[in-house]
Amino acid sequence: MQYGSSGNTLNNFISNGSYSFCNPAFASLAGYSSLALLKMLGMSAYTVIQRFRTGSFITPEDDIYKKMMNQLGLSHGNMVGTKSDLVERARENHLNDLENIIPFVLAGLFYIGTRPKFDCALWHFRIFLLSRLLHTIAYQVPLPQPTRTISWLLGYSSIISMTIPVLRSIQL
Amino acid sequence: MQYGSSGNTLNNFISNGSYSFCNPAFASLAGYSSLALLKMLGMSAYTVIQRFRTGSFITPEDDIYKKMMNQLGLSHGNMVGTKSDLVERARENHLNDLENIIPFVLAGLFYIGTRPKFDCALWHFRIFLLSRLLHTIAYQVPLPQPTRTISWLLGYSSIISMTIPVLRSIQL
Amino acid sequence: MQYGSSGNTLNNFISNGSYSFCNPAFASLAGYSSLALLKMLGMSAYTVIQRFRTGSFITPEDDIYKKMMNQLGLSHGNMVGTKSDLVERARENHLNDLENIIPFVLAGLFYIGTRPKFDCALWHFRIFLLSRLLHTIAYQVPLPQPTRTISWLLGYSSIISMTIPVLRSIQL
Repeated sequence: MQYGSSGNTLNNFISNGSYSFCNPAFASLAGYSSLALLKMLGMSAYTVIQRFRTGSFITPEDDIYKKMMNQLGLSHGNMVGTKSDLVERARENHLNDLENIIPFVLAGLFYIGTRPKFDCALWHFRIFLLSRLLHTIAYQVPLPQPTRTISWLLGYSSIISMTIPVLRSIQL
Repeated sequence: MQYGSSGNTLNNFISNGSYSFCNPAFASLAGYSSLALLKMLGMSAYTVIQRFRTGSFITPEDDIYKKMMNQLGLSHGNMVGTKSDLVERARENHLNDLENIIPFVLAGLFYIGTRPKFDCALWHFRIFLLSRLLHTIAYQVPLPQPTRTISWLLGYSSIISMTIPVLRSIQL
Repeated sequence: MQYGSSGNTLNNFISNGSYSFCNPAFASLAGYSSLALLKMLGMSAYTVIQRFRTGSFITPEDDIYKKMMNQLGLSHGNMVGTKSDLVERARENHLNDLENIIPFVLAGLFYIGTRPKFDCALWHFRIFLLSRLLHTIAYQVPLPQPTRTISWLLGYSSIISMTIPVLRSIQL
């Protein structure tokens, strides 16, 4: 970590409060959130790959990509019937990530403010990240249900569990 | 609140800056944001309920849920025509939440950094949360327009109003 | 900036850590994030405008707006064929903003915790905001491809580049 002259960790922790990389729970949240966000950003790239594989683009100006693929001999005329399925599957997965990973990071930020026990926080983050990875695999392979539903439910429960101490410690 | 040995609230407020639960405006934001996020997460559960009620699922592997419902005698053959409407209504509502509640929390985090007056901040959060609850009721009942439009506009204005002090207090 | 009695900026910076408007990198993030969020919120208004221009609404209760437009002599019967295209283009653009601007703000918040050099942080934020403005123009005019793809890729790279120091400075 790039810390300046005030190198005393304990001192930093006291003076900086919860929102500092000296607080191991915040550093954990930063790491797991970044990994989850990268996984979500990866869905954009994955959707683009599926678009090129199936020749399925959304706007007329994207036709230059189709022409480019034809010139390179990469056209997939035989996949026309199934094209929207693969792209839609990637897009639905991406939307589900938005609906779960973003609330995880935001709920996590407030959760850190309640000064949770480090181990307790770490397991929330671990379970969430693993459940999202499993969810994506289950969605894209696809694995038989209810694998996808259960993996989604695990991550979902982890978010709700993090909001409870926040709601307890504040008055509206 | 679970505070450690440094129990002096005034001291904490001075040393921790704006982003601490000792700052009542931040604690308020945490509470109202968590409630808004829970309301948004609730839309996932609501969509699942609408899918089961109408037997409308998106992927082939979800067919086991249809079979399960048939075995339990819960099939709704007569609702086939309207099924997509109810699910789409829930999904559009969820997307609208994503487009408004997430920017609210993020704009709120920066707004807290400008040290707003507590009362002023609190009314922004209250109006936003109420407007989103009204928006959801107006969307799902559904109530006659322009109820939904007005409730959306209230929350939307609250977010924009919070970004003004942020843009004023910084130079780009 | 509205600072209270503790007016000593240097003192504030030391005692408040990274997440304070006294930290110029955080103030920058707040400004650029707010502008990006306002740009994203603008897509809601833009979609509403496109709906009214084309008379394309999603729910039956919105029919009162169609009637209102007819009474005002603003109906566009001749645009029925193209209506979904314009609205869909606005909606896809909005969704792309959600998929990129929200991760930018969240990754930026953790990036600030790694105490990046101010110049380095500022250029990340500048490139991101410009790339999103260019992306929107390229999407809505529309400009010929690959303008949209390149502008999207620039902003995307900026987010990924910000997560690298976060992942480096923490252990999972």
